[in-house]
Amino acid sequence: MRYKLPAAAHMMGVALAQIVVLTGSAVAQPRDWLPSWNAGAAKTSIVAFVEEVTTPSRAGFVSAPERIAVFDNDGTLWAEQPMYFQLAFALDRVRALAPQHPEWRQQMPFSAVLDGDLPRVLAGGERALIELVMATHAGTTTEEFSATVTDWLASAKHPRTGRRYDEMVYQPMLELLAYLRANGFKTFIVSGGGIEFMRPWTERVYGIPPEQVVGSSIKTEFERRDGVPVLVRTPAVDFIDDKAGKPIGINQHIGRRPIAAFGNSDGDLEMIEWTTAGSGVRFGLIVHHTDADREWAYDRQSEIGRLDKALDEATTKGWTVVDMRRDWNKVYPLDR
Amino acid sequence: MRYKLPAAAHMMGVALAQIVVLTGSAVAQPRDWLPSWNAGAAKTSIVAFVEEVTTPSRAGFVSAPERIAVFDNDGTLWAEQPMYFQLAFALDRVRALAPQHPEWRQQMPFSAVLDGDLPRVLAGGERALIELVMATHAGTTTEEFSATVTDWLASAKHPRTGRRYDEMVYQPMLELLAYLRANGFKTFIVSGGGIEFMRPWTERVYGIPPEQVVGSSIKTEFERRDGVPVLVRTPAVDFIDDKAGKPIGINQHIGRRPIAAFGNSDGDLEMIEWTTAGSGVRFGLIVHHTDADREWAYDRQSEIGRLDKALDEATTKGWTVVDMRRDWNKVYPLDR
Repeated sequence: MRYKLPAAAHMMGVALAQIVVLTGSAVAQPRDWLPSWNAGAAKTSIVAFVEEVTTPSRAGFVSAPERIAVFDNDGTLWAEQPMYFQLAFALDRVRALAPQHPEWRQQMPFSAVLDGDLPRVLAGGERALIELVMATHAGTTTEEFSATVTDWLASAKHPRTGRRYDEMVYQPMLELLAYLRANGFKTFIVSGGGIEFMRPWTERVYGIPPEQVVGSSIKTEFERRDGVPVLVRTPAVDFIDDKAGKPIGINQHIGRRPIAAFGNSDGDLEMIEWTTAGSGVRFGLIVHHTDADREWAYDRQSEIGRLDKALDEATTKGWTVVDMRRDWNKVYPLDR
Repeated sequence: MRYKLPAAAHMMGVALAQIVVLTGSAVAQPRDWLPSWNAGAAKTSIVAFVEEVTTPSRAGFVSAPERIAVFDNDGTLWAEQPMYFQLAFALDRVRALAPQHPEWRQQMPFSAVLDGDLPRVLAGGERALIELVMATHAGTTTEEFSATVTDWLASAKHPRTGRRYDEMVYQPMLELLAYLRANGFKTFIVSGGGIEFMRPWTERVYGIPPEQVVGSSIKTEFERRDGVPVLVRTPAVDFIDDKAGKPIGINQHIGRRPIAAFGNSDGDLEMIEWTTAGSGVRFGLIVHHTDADREWAYDRQSEIGRLDKALDEATTKGWTVVDMRRDWNKVYPLDR
């Protein structure tokens, strides 16, 4: 086994392997892999795609090494409201680091953060957000940063649900990831979020190892400290893995075109276009946030996770659109 | 199976899986995985390391997802004399493209290439080489470039051996790659060579898929041509994956520290340092080119593949040094 999976999925994988050995068959699906998905067009399209590309006698058959599936993270695998969870992390870090930075009391955007005035923070635009990220994500070694993320995730709670952020992942998407992997897919994250913000927990939470996470990055430098080599995170943008950056990031990290792409916003448009423009059978899917009761409802006018052009393209190009309210009978793993 | 393996290794993998199922044991090694390695300190150290990290009862046991092994390419997995094979590719491309560039007859370094005057090309230093790379590696889509590399490799012959370049891979290293993978390792290339020059053939030749290849890169841009998305290679350096760049590239692409690193030159020093500085059992190995008859003999004074500091460090730090002449009973797969 290459991944740490939740125990149930792990046992399922073992059971599957045994069935394959005993029957000599490469196809063995003794159960519904997607129980949190209601019957309907979305679920049907997913299963039809997987059966098409994994059945050797079908025209759309794809050899296992080419079964690459890419997933956006924010709004696709976990929630992203009322702000990207990584921004919540950055704000918490500003508060934690404030005693070492008395000058922040007189300095925007830090003063607004310390006043708890989020609208004033956001009024600073992209430049303010980059300043916050650089002040809270740079200056440490890669290993120190990883530990900071892990500690934060273990204790921070979402303001509305009171749950840990890693409990706000989507159960139907966890099932989809496991279903694809059981069918020989290699699953990747391709996110606008920070690559080193995600890697400390994606293997535990999603079964996606660090080497299959693509994201935005800042530059690192190699140093020897008392003869011990370290990588130091510097306050300089290296790569923004969003919009047209997503196909570029995919090419850089994966080096072949995926056959399936999953997103939820206009930031995922180019990734899904690039994926579905390849030859043979391809699959594009958009998670449409339509459930204001169990999650949030937003699309064309949203500041965060705007879904406008990509929703139109989905219709034109025949991508699957998931209606969260109608298609999912469960949102978070801890929901009843 | 995730990788396309040579048929023999593939069958061995299946046999191993069956033994595991039948006996319930995670350790089953019914044969010598390294027949091209002579008995001696190098082979012994490799086997001892693998047994240590894969045996659950041992102090050095490492869980499978953390078994990351990184390999330099030029001079470690395939030969690199009398010039990096990628430079041979670039020179051939200059000749092939010359009819479309009459101005090259009067323009260095191209005129020197067309005159077949390699010393004059190399006299231009790094700047001349970068000009050659940009003129021959940029300006196409990623898919066009991949096809060009594949075509070249299928026909070009090495000037001394008369063999195809992909026949000049090291048989003992192919065995080592297969041995590590059979023991749950994930094998990566981390090379100063071009990432997109390697990816078209590493899966077929080494069993290493494109997503496990790290290398130097030029920038790409996303474009829509008649509505079809393409990635275009532009003449701008993106990343140099050599020396201190290697740990940085490892962090960027893999996101965790390897437990084993294999190289042959000072360009691999930081990679092996970074790998072996981690906690627990670690393994560093240097291929020392000592065989002027079957391959080449070079080290401290060589222009290509200089091995000087890293050879000293190997002694100090206890890395394994392979004496090619003494430790390998076969160099290339087609050798008798």
